Amino acid sequence: MDRKGILVVVSGFSGSGKGTIMKELLRRYDNYALSISATTRSPREGEEDGREYFFKTREEFEKMIAEDALIEHASYVGNYYGTPRAYVEQQLALGKDVILEIEIQGALQIKKRFPDTLLLFISPPDARTLKERLVGRGTESMEVIESRLARAAEEAEGIESYDYFIINDDLEICVEQVHQMIKGEHSRVSRSLELIHEIRTELKEFQKG
Amino acid sequence: MDRKGILVVVSGFSGSGKGTIMKELLRRYDNYALSISATTRSPREGEEDGREYFFKTREEFEKMIAEDALIEHASYVGNYYGTPRAYVEQQLALGKDVILEIEIQGALQIKKRFPDTLLLFISPPDARTLKERLVGRGTESMEVIESRLARAAEEAEGIESYDYFIINDDLEICVEQVHQMIKGEHSRVSRSLELIHEIRTELKEFQKG
Repeated sequence: MDRKGILVVVSGFSGSGKGTIMKELLRRYDNYALSISATTRSPREGEEDGREYFFKTREEFEKMIAEDALIEHASYVGNYYGTPRAYVEQQLALGKDVILEIEIQGALQIKKRFPDTLLLFISPPDARTLKERLVGRGTESMEVIESRLARAAEEAEGIESYDYFIINDDLEICVEQVHQMIKGEHSRVSRSLELIHEIRTELKEFQKG
Repeated sequence: MDRKGILVVVSGFSGSGKGTIMKELLRRYDNYALSISATTRSPREGEEDGREYFFKTREEFEKMIAEDALIEHASYVGNYYGTPRAYVEQQLALGKDVILEIEIQGALQIKKRFPDTLLLFISPPDARTLKERLVGRGTESMEVIESRLARAAEEAEGIESYDYFIINDDLEICVEQVHQMIKGEHSRVSRSLELIHEIRTELKEFQKG
């Protein structure tokens, strides 16, 4: 079995429940590590540096870009968001499957640099449910909801770049499904080449013997 | 969720336990159908036509080839082996995941004609265990065992063409792993394009509304 961790990108529509799924994976299984993003946006009420985000000044962030200390970064509503390289590499080397929650722009950057990244897209069962989940929060104006719907339509354009399109209809089932997918991914032939090579070499030894 | 069945090819070293894994999948879950091969070799003691194989004359078999009634066929030790098309297509249309136990030659033919076939290769944890399992049967001469090892070395050359390389160390774990892999495969983006298209269309409707 491949002992190196897998880099897993989780994206999904707002309201798809992807945040809860990731929290449950981390709570239930010890093979996961969650990457924390860096951002230049200001901390919101209750957010802590190093927990929700690493909060950086614009200058600090641009230094990280210049030093190639981020494996991806993107701008959104005037702020930078990015994934620090060091933590990801360290956890992968320890054999952890590292989960990143990022959007399509960053996901595609990562897939390009690390082609064996697993890209998961989480969705409610249909657009109507998606709309209901957004409206159901009851905390946002119709305008905000509509802008989120517009964003969802935009994100939907990129789904073909992902590996799996996962329906979150029942949270319990969905968490297990995602966990099994990541587990199964370790048995991909492309991730087992060393082991295959070893078995081949041993088989040849036996034939000679 | 994709409602069409998946065509699953299971190959593996002799002694890998692939036969038992397939039997267990069929016994435990109702989403599987097992394809039965046609062959020109003679039935062995206890084998029944339509259960282990469909036993055909050389003439009948060649007629099936000519009529494109087989999705793959191969020769082995002077006999034909092949997979009848009709049963596979009918079961896939019913939404069953159809499992074929065939060797690399046939597996590659199928992958070429049906690129969305899932190819699984089952292996013992290492070559030493493989040798022990072959020897352990105690029913074959050293010569036969050596020829099997040689064949295993040959088969090992083709593993890169498969999707998953699955270690059968513990039967119970392995059966569940294979089941989860096939289940997960239904959520591949490439198998969910219709659903993705529907969600996109609905999202656009909402934006207009």
